[in-house]
Formats: sequence, structure tokens, C-alpha cells
Amino acid sequence: MFVIMRAGCTVDERNRLVRVIKKVGLPVQVSESGHRVVIGIGGDEERLRDTPLDTFPGVEKVVALKTPHPLASRECRSESTSIQAGRARIGGNGLTIIAGPCAVEDGELLLEIAHAARAAGAHMLRGGAFKPRTSPYKFQGLGEQGLRLLRDAGRAAGLAVVTEAMDTGHVDLVAEYADVIQIGSRNMQNFALLKAVAKSDIPVLLKRGQAATITEWLCAAEYLLAGGNENVALCERGLVSFDSAVRHHLDLSAVPLVKRLSHLPVLVDPSHGTGKRELVPAMARAAVAAGADGVMVEIHQTPHLALSDARQALLPAEFEQLVPQLHAIHDIVRTGSVAVT
Amino acid sequence: MFVIMRAGCTVDERNRLVRVIKKVGLPVQVSESGHRVVIGIGGDEERLRDTPLDTFPGVEKVVALKTPHPLASRECRSESTSIQAGRARIGGNGLTIIAGPCAVEDGELLLEIAHAARAAGAHMLRGGAFKPRTSPYKFQGLGEQGLRLLRDAGRAAGLAVVTEAMDTGHVDLVAEYADVIQIGSRNMQNFALLKAVAKSDIPVLLKRGQAATITEWLCAAEYLLAGGNENVALCERGLVSFDSAVRHHLDLSAVPLVKRLSHLPVLVDPSHGTGKRELVPAMARAAVAAGADGVMVEIHQTPHLALSDARQALLPAEFEQLVPQLHAIHDIVRTGSVAVT
Amino acid sequence: MFVIMRAGCTVDERNRLVRVIKKVGLPVQVSESGHRVVIGIGGDEERLRDTPLDTFPGVEKVVALKTPHPLASRECRSESTSIQAGRARIGGNGLTIIAGPCAVEDGELLLEIAHAARAAGAHMLRGGAFKPRTSPYKFQGLGEQGLRLLRDAGRAAGLAVVTEAMDTGHVDLVAEYADVIQIGSRNMQNFALLKAVAKSDIPVLLKRGQAATITEWLCAAEYLLAGGNENVALCERGLVSFDSAVRHHLDLSAVPLVKRLSHLPVLVDPSHGTGKRELVPAMARAAVAAGADGVMVEIHQTPHLALSDARQALLPAEFEQLVPQLHAIHDIVRTGSVAVT
Amino acid sequence: MFVIMRAGCTVDERNRLVRVIKKVGLPVQVSESGHRVVIGIGGDEERLRDTPLDTFPGVEKVVALKTPHPLASRECRSESTSIQAGRARIGGNGLTIIAGPCAVEDGELLLEIAHAARAAGAHMLRGGAFKPRTSPYKFQGLGEQGLRLLRDAGRAAGLAVVTEAMDTGHVDLVAEYADVIQIGSRNMQNFALLKAVAKSDIPVLLKRGQAATITEWLCAAEYLLAGGNENVALCERGLVSFDSAVRHHLDLSAVPLVKRLSHLPVLVDPSHGTGKRELVPAMARAAVAAGADGVMVEIHQTPHLALSDARQALLPAEFEQLVPQLHAIHDIVRTGSVAVT
Repeated sequence: MFVIMRAGCTVDERNRLVRVIKKVGLPVQVSESGHRVVIGIGGDEERLRDTPLDTFPGVEKVVALKTPHPLASRECRSESTSIQAGRARIGGNGLTIIAGPCAVEDGELLLEIAHAARAAGAHMLRGGAFKPRTSPYKFQGLGEQGLRLLRDAGRAAGLAVVTEAMDTGHVDLVAEYADVIQIGSRNMQNFALLKAVAKSDIPVLLKRGQAATITEWLCAAEYLLAGGNENVALCERGLVSFDSAVRHHLDLSAVPLVKRLSHLPVLVDPSHGTGKRELVPAMARAAVAAGADGVMVEIHQTPHLALSDARQALLPAEFEQLVPQLHAIHDIVRTGSVAVT
Repeated sequence: MFVIMRAGCTVDERNRLVRVIKKVGLPVQVSESGHRVVIGIGGDEERLRDTPLDTFPGVEKVVALKTPHPLASRECRSESTSIQAGRARIGGNGLTIIAGPCAVEDGELLLEIAHAARAAGAHMLRGGAFKPRTSPYKFQGLGEQGLRLLRDAGRAAGLAVVTEAMDTGHVDLVAEYADVIQIGSRNMQNFALLKAVAKSDIPVLLKRGQAATITEWLCAAEYLLAGGNENVALCERGLVSFDSAVRHHLDLSAVPLVKRLSHLPVLVDPSHGTGKRELVPAMARAAVAAGADGVMVEIHQTPHLALSDARQALLPAEFEQLVPQLHAIHDIVRTGSVAVT
Repeated sequence: MFVIMRAGCTVDERNRLVRVIKKVGLPVQVSESGHRVVIGIGGDEERLRDTPLDTFPGVEKVVALKTPHPLASRECRSESTSIQAGRARIGGNGLTIIAGPCAVEDGELLLEIAHAARAAGAHMLRGGAFKPRTSPYKFQGLGEQGLRLLRDAGRAAGLAVVTEAMDTGHVDLVAEYADVIQIGSRNMQNFALLKAVAKSDIPVLLKRGQAATITEWLCAAEYLLAGGNENVALCERGLVSFDSAVRHHLDLSAVPLVKRLSHLPVLVDPSHGTGKRELVPAMARAAVAAGADGVMVEIHQTPHLALSDARQALLPAEFEQLVPQLHAIHDIVRTGSVAVT
Repeated sequence: MFVIMRAGCTVDERNRLVRVIKKVGLPVQVSESGHRVVIGIGGDEERLRDTPLDTFPGVEKVVALKTPHPLASRECRSESTSIQAGRARIGGNGLTIIAGPCAVEDGELLLEIAHAARAAGAHMLRGGAFKPRTSPYKFQGLGEQGLRLLRDAGRAAGLAVVTEAMDTGHVDLVAEYADVIQIGSRNMQNFALLKAVAKSDIPVLLKRGQAATITEWLCAAEYLLAGGNENVALCERGLVSFDSAVRHHLDLSAVPLVKRLSHLPVLVDPSHGTGKRELVPAMARAAVAAGADGVMVEIHQTPHLALSDARQALLPAEFEQLVPQLHAIHDIVRTGSVAVT
């Protein structure tokens, strides 16, 4: 059970409620931010049968849902969320195209990619400055220098930028340079990081863990929402696979499923989601056909020279050919009907 | 290594080759049918270094590929295969729509569904007469009576029909009534069944096992091709999932991947592949966007009364709305470009 | 809901019950054999509220359990089942050791392996005459000749023999030669095969499918039990793995779990279950420590020359060293206490 | 390729080597700590063919291994590592038993558990002060207060203590109170955390991620070793499962596999690894039989009142019965032979 407090409720109102709940012996958890106070109640709810919580001052709503992620749920908010991220918008009626290299490596190359991405119709530029790498001996990213190069390239090309933070210590730095902070799949349940990002109000792109259930993913989003950050977008990027023919199994069924369960926008990353360049265009099209609010695609002029993920980046020309197909499919999905010619 | 013999090679030519290979101590496996003889050679190929197999009489080609499924591979046949299945065609430039109930239950209901399917644009009617059920206490299908009802409904509505055979003992019976014989996901590696179906020349729809790799799937197809049946279509239908939010993870990346590796047509079953009606339209669209040659969708007038898989059947009206969207997306994929208006 | 009929109930009693159930509109499924009639009832059980089935003549018990596999459940039979398989016994207080090559290849070699297995303490000899192979070009087994060689080697060494049937057409033949018929993991849900084996009374070793849940596995056993074959033993042999470091993930937690849920004996095959010889002794020990009623281990004098699964066979000497360790661990598990010295 | 520098190599020696490698155009990554400098080299090693790195001053060894985790590998260090953790030892010839509640909840209860654990033969006390919880509304741990309670209970009972750090910000605090710092499965690839812990020299218990391959796990250990912390123990705790009958599939084959690949000690957590109390004793026995250097078991006086993981804690009495069985099995495994009575 959850109690959602009214915006502007007083500390006294909140504390009184907490005392009442504790008195009947139930564990209580207060999640607060400037924007919102949510009181989660665990244990046997029967003990509150004679305590009409919704009549207490400061209470907006008592939610008896079975869902463990009330703030992320459609049941709590029926209209779809859309997020302003610099010049770009994620969610709503549009289709958001994010493109860029896996990692920021070189300012000049990046600028070239940024212009190519913009010319092909991208709205946002991606690129990692902090890189989570399986091996400690691989390129770990340029850090703050990479953030600066990314911001500059984005500005020059007129694109919003998104980049990953891997640790609570990176959050302020990334927020200074980027329009959207990405939480990578390996950190989807890095709860300390989620709590730190929740305290900022920078838009967040929350990637799904490679073995995360839909519930776990939405609960991770709930950490952000409960902590006060309402600008959350989700991104499917492939599940652990038993078949070495692909690096991951991109779970596109997550798109319509999450769109039903939650009001948050859902993007898809077909590059990491397959790990194979030759599958990216087909899976980007499929993602949009499944109802995604956008795609995030790796592009690189010279993929074989990239310091990471060389196998999955599209050439700018391939990307340019893909974008109008995505919009055409998006139109079919959005209108639910087919134009008569 | 594989030796593909010329069509019409003699028994002597074949036997001579086998003797030569055995003489150097290598295991040999002859797969033959009226149409084709393939000689598979195991072990250390170095021993054949001084034996130029391609110069022997009757030999068409020596294939030194690494692939374990040469006949199914694009490398052996670059043009895409298309199959005539009764009035319907699978593969080529078209999009094949298969619809129908999970199981054949009642003649009148089935006829109604068949007419609705046809009216909405389906080319083939599906329906199980032999049903693989997890529990022995569940409805196991009507057997031959079901086959008869299916054939009759197909004829009445002008649709080709496809239905499953679960055992070597069913093959002739199913071939008598159906245009396409389905091998279900649980039987993908029922090698005795594959060999029996290979001896017939009825078109086959080979579903992917729920934990089968792409290689295992194409090797199962290879059993059919090596046994002499060239009319093979593949059907992705969802992988084992660690997330109870869906019944399976529909692996759409299999579509572009298999289309690259193999010349065989690939369909997708979004009904079994998700197990949830509300996800079927989105995943059918995504399947076509990923490049599928067709989809197989369960429909039922009264899904809640169906004796199996009630949770995943679309209503005929939902299906009717879906079909033109699929064709519109297929046009975008097929032409690779977007019409300028 | 299930109705278990009394042994010796009449056809009239049975039919009457079926009519009564159908009259209220519920689907009914009769499973019978010489030994046992079980009537499974689907749909909304509320409709039978006013029909006291347990008072009908011929009814032994009405089982309202939630379990889909009543006959396999501990709830229906609290004492553990043990099975006589030729000279060997599976289940009960003992530990059953099965050893032998993956496939029967050569009579002389097999005889040697059989004697080595017996000398090391094995009770049964394994060896495939019908081999399920991913590729059609690999050695498919010697068929009936292999069955004969296996039987002869077993007789000579004083061992019971177990071998796989892959198709309904093999069942009688295998039953003629073997003491135990194996249903392989790929055929765990080959329901036609299960039904055919159920009609015989030869003991069955039912391997778990590589992506089968515990429920699906016990439902497969239920096909055998409901069909009249009570001599069923289970064998865990590894699940599909996302890590190429092993061929499968051997799920040893299945052992204590199934022993709680079911009265059937449970063996473990650490050879197929890991696919790596160097892991087999450790996993065999672990299987026994987890409570397994036995293990099935591949052994071969010259593993590198074996026609299948060369990577996973133990040498006879390694096996000989392992067996006493297994018995020592089994003693600890069985007594639940440790001898004081 | 990796270059391991001699202990005490100079900065000049190091920098010279880095310059040489960069000059041929290869990416280079220096990992250093007070103890050890490792230089990882990426890209095409052919370019270094004419540069005999092993002759450069300060170089101890050039490792051309294929392994991505040289420091963790047996190839680099053949003797097994053992770690002193307060009064306890992990690795070597002994069996390390860790027990305690999932979370530290209450000082008095914890003290009682600690004494019971010690009496039953445990060497270390576990208990979470920072708790990674799927939902933000669940008990998140007592933080520093919990650390203090844990340390005090450990001291009182004569047990070393282990507890989890979830963020770089926790590391110093946890190191102040605990003998071993745990990195939880969700943080196995929290590389910022790994790097922070690597800089301390507190022993680390590195749990395997729920979908991590063996290679990924050993690479995570490599982050710790390359960063200068040599006191690393590994802990298997269950993989993502497609079967809701268990919470995870405990992968015991990881134990013998990692013991072959690496010199690091390997423990097993059968409590999280199954999520079911009734399976814990069997799987603890199996872990030791598979060769584990120790087990970590959750115990609680009143599991149903625990604030987390109530379903998986053993009662102290059950634990007490288990410990001598584990030692008896460990003796069999260690000696590789069975005592003759």
C-alpha cells in the first residue's frame, strides 16, 4: 500500500501519518523530494483496516494497488509522459531519433558524426565519456574531456546530447554538460546511483538490465520518480542470450507491454540490442513498428577503427537511408490506419 | 565437408565415393532422396588432402564450408526460396497471412472463422487437430475429424490450410488433408519426425524450438532438405523467458539473421510468441518490419471459450484492422524506400 | 480437478461419471490403462458444486489439488517410489550408478567398457543405438544392431541396460532389448512418444528438457503415469546456458525440489549436464550431495575417438576413483548425520 | 597482450614502455596501484612483432595469453590464493562457513544469531547494513548504525564480519567496520565501485551477477586485482531462471570451472541461490561436494518476521545440523579418497 501526499503537505502531516502506521506495527518507508512525498507501507495491510488513512490531513490518495511501482504506472497517471531534453522531446506524438558513436574518442570525428546525424534527421547525439567495459584493460572513456567534446559537438550541430553516468560521483558533472543522463544496463539496479540521479531534475534515460524483468525495470524507474525526478524515459537494449549468433536478444515485446503498464516513454537501442550492424536497420524498423517512442542507434564513419563496439555501428549513409523508413512506419502505428492513395 | 552429388548420379558413383572416403578412415553419412544425394564427411579433413573429390564422376560440388547446414545456407543457394502451398505462396515478394484458431473444436465455428479470416485478407487457415499439451488432462485435439473439418473450412473459404503433425504416425494422414504440415516447437528436434516429413513432399512449416539456437533450427531444416523435401518455411514463435510478464520472448532478430544465413522463408507467430492478445498486433507489425515473409495469428470469435490458448487469440475485428497495416509496413521494407507524396 | 477411479471399476461406472460431468458443460479427459483410470476435469469447477462426485460408484478419490500432475505428486503418494530395472534398482535407499559410452559404436569396445563399469561399481550400462544429433550428417546410431550389442554387453558384464527411443516406432524394439527405455531431453514433450511408452510397462528414464520447468517435467511424467506405466524415474541433464563456458547449466536444485514435490526417483547426468569431462566428477559428487538417487556418467576408453560427445566422457580409471566418493557422500546424505570416529 | 611490470619499477620505465607502444599505434591502458603495474595493450599485436617488450627495463613478464583476466588466471599464478579476513581464513585447505541474517535489523536479535552461528561452527557473520532492494518502498538497511551493530555482534561472538557496500561513497565506511567488504550481484559490473574497492586493501567477496558469464565475473575480479587489491574471493549466488519454481538457478558447475581457471577462492550462497529455505541444506552440501571453499548461509531465529528474504533463512537448529555434514563432505573432496574403516 502507498500513500501519496498532497504537494505542499507539511512535515507535521507527514510525521503524524508515519507515527500512526508504525503504531500498528507496520514497516514504513518515506520517499520524498521537493515535489512529492510517497509513503510506502509494508507487511499485513489488514492492521490498517480501522485506520482510514485517506481522511488524514495532507493525504492526496491511498493506493491499494498490487503494483510495486505506483508512480510509474498508468493506473496512477493515464496520460503518456513526454520529456523536454534540451531541444529534443521524448515521448508524445513524435519519434525521437538518437545517434552517435559508442564512445567519444576524438573531437573532430565526433563533430563530423554529429553533423551527419543531424543531416539525416537525428534529434539527439549520443556518446560515452564514462564507459563501462568488461575488461579493465580496455578504453575506459575520456571522462570530463569527453563530456566537453560531446557538448560542443551537440551545440555545433544543433542536437541535444545524452551520455552515461556510472557512479554517484559523476552525476553533477554529467548534468553540467548533458541534456539527458543515461543510466546503463549494468547500473539499472545501482540503487545509490538511481537515488543520486533522482535528486537532480535532469532528464534520465534508464536502460533495461540484461536480465531484468519488466517489473524490476519499472521499479528502478520508481526509484527515480519517488526520489523526485519526473523526467524518466526507458530504453530496451537486449537481454542475455543463450545463442551466440546474437550478442543479446532484443525484447521488443517489452515496448507494447511497458506502454500499457506505464505512462513513461520507451525507446529501443537496436545497436547494443543485437551487437551486429547488419541487424540494426531491421530491428530499428521493428522497434518503431512495435510502438517505440524512439530509437538510439550507433553510427560511426569508420566502425572498424572505433575503440569499442565496432561490430554494431552503422555508417552514416546507412543511417540516412533508415530514418525516413522509421518515420513512415511510425505514421502507420500512430494513426492506426493506412492512408488510402 | 560435404559432397553434393549431381542430380541423377548413379548408385555406383555414389558408392565409389563413399568407399574412397572410408578408406582414409573418415566417418561418412549419406543423405539421399529422389532429388538429391549429399555425402557428409566428419573427422579430420586433412586426410583427404590428396583426394580431389570434385573430380570424381557424379560429383556436383564439394563444399568445405564451416556451416553445419549447407543445403539451408545462402552460400549454397543465393536466391530466396518461395513455396507453393495450395492456393497460397510463402516467400518471394509477397506477405503471407495465416490466421485461425489454436485448435479445431467445432465445424461451424471454424467455418465462421475461416470466412472472417479470408475477408480480412488471410491466405491460409491454421488450426490444430493434434495438440501438444503440457498436461495429459487437457484437450488433445480432434484428430482425423479435426483434419477433415479444417480441410472443409479451408475449401469453403478459399484458403490453404496448415496443421501440426506430432508423430511419424500422423504424417501421411496430415498430408492427405492439409496443404502445409506444421512441425511444432516442441518437436523441432524430433529427428524421427523430421525424417518422415522429409520423405513426403508436402510443404513444411518448421517452428523454432523454445530454446533452440539459430544453428540448431537451421540444422533441423537441413534434416528436411537433406531428406529430399525442399518446401521448407521457418517460423519463429518465442523463446523461453525468465520474465513471467510474457509467456515467451519473441526473438525478432532471428528474422533478419536467418534471412541472411538462409534462403528459406521466415514467418513469425506473435500469438504463441507472446502469449498475450494485447501484444499481438504490435508484434505482428514489428515482425513484418523486421523482414518476415508472413505472420501466423490466432483468431477466435469468443476467445474466452476456446479450449486452449484463450489468452492470445485476436478477435476477427482486431485482425481485420491489423492486416492493412502489415501490408503497408511490408511495402516500406520491400522497397527499402518511402513513397514521396 | 481429478477423479481417481478405484482399481477394477467398471466401464459403466466410468461412463456414467463422464456423462455427469459433460452434462454440466465441463470438458473431460479420461486417461486409462489396465491399472488405473483418472478422469481429468477442466473449466469452472463451480458447476460441480452440487454434484458430489466422491459418492459415485467406482470412485476412489476426488482430488481438488491445484497441481497439474496429481499422479506424480507426493500429495497423492507419500512414500518414495523405487523401480526394479533388470538386476538394478532405482530409488529407495540405494545409489544407482549408470555408466557407459554416449553411443554404441563397436561390440568389442563396448564389452570392455561394460566390464570396466561393472568393476568400478556401476549397476547399469548406458549406450545409444538411436542417437538424436543436431546435424543430419553426424553419426545417427547403429539402430537394432546397437541394441543387440548393448544387451549382449550388459548380459556379459552382469549389468542392466538403458537406451533411448526417439520415436513411437522404436518403442517395442527398444523394450525387447533393454531393461530401461530412455526418453531424451529433446523428446521430453514428444507426447506421442510418451503415450506409446506409457502403454508398455518397461521402466522409463525421463530426461528433463533443456528449457523445461519443473512443472512441465512432472507433467511429462504424468503422461506416463496416467497412461499406465508406473515405473518412471527422472533425470536432470542440464539447462540451456547463456554462457559458452559450459554446454549447459546443470540444475542441481531440481533434485531436492523434485524429491519434495514428487515420489519419483531422480537421477543426474553430469556428463551431458556440463559437456566437459573435467567438471564431471565434481558435479557427480554434488548431485549425490544434493540428494540424487543416482548418476549417469559417460565413460570411454578413448574419448577422443568417440563418434559423439568426445569432450565429456570420463576415462574408466577416473570413474573408478569417483564411485567410492559418491557412496561416501550418499551415506552422509542418507543418514543425515556424520559418523563419529 | 599484457605487460606485468616488476614490483618497484620506476615511473620512467613505465612511461617509456607506454610511449613505445603508442608509437606503433596501439591503444594502451595502464592499471596501477602501490603494488602492481599492469599495462594492457589492445588492437593488432602484430605491430609489436619487432619490439621485444620483455627486454625493456622494469618489465617482469609479457603475457600473450588469450585470457582477458590475466591476474585472476591460474596461468599467472598456479597456487591457490587464500585470504586472511579478521579471524577467519578463506581458501586454502579449510572450509569457511559464513552465516547470519539477510539484513541487520536489531542489535539484540543479531547478537543472538551471532552466538548461535558461532556455536554451530561458523567462522564469519554476515548481515546487510546497506540493502539493495528492487522496490524503493522496502526496508533499505540501517546504514552506519547497522555496521556498528554488526561489528559489535561479531566481536562479542568471536566472528569476522562481512557486509555489502553498494556505492563508492560507502567503501571507507564499510572498511572501517567490517573484515570483508561484499560486492553484491547487482553491482558486479559497477566498475566505479570495483575501482574504489581496489584501492583499499580490505578483503573483498565478489558475488557473481545473475546473468554474468564466468569470463565477465573473472574480469570483474580483474578490476580489483589490477587496481591493487589482491584479497579477492568469489561467491556464486544463482543465475536468472526461466522457472518460477526457484528464484534462481544456482550454477554449481561454476565452482569446479572457476577453480580450474583461477587461483581465487570460490564460495557459494545457497540461500539467495535458491530463494527457498527447504532447498538450502541440500544445495549447501552440493556446493561443498562441487569443491567450494565455503558457503554463506542465511539464518534467522524467526524468519517469518525478517524484513527481507524471509523465505530463505534457515533456523539456527537446521544450520547446526548442517555444518558437520559439510565438513564431512569437504574431507571426502579434499582428500579425493574415502577413509577405509
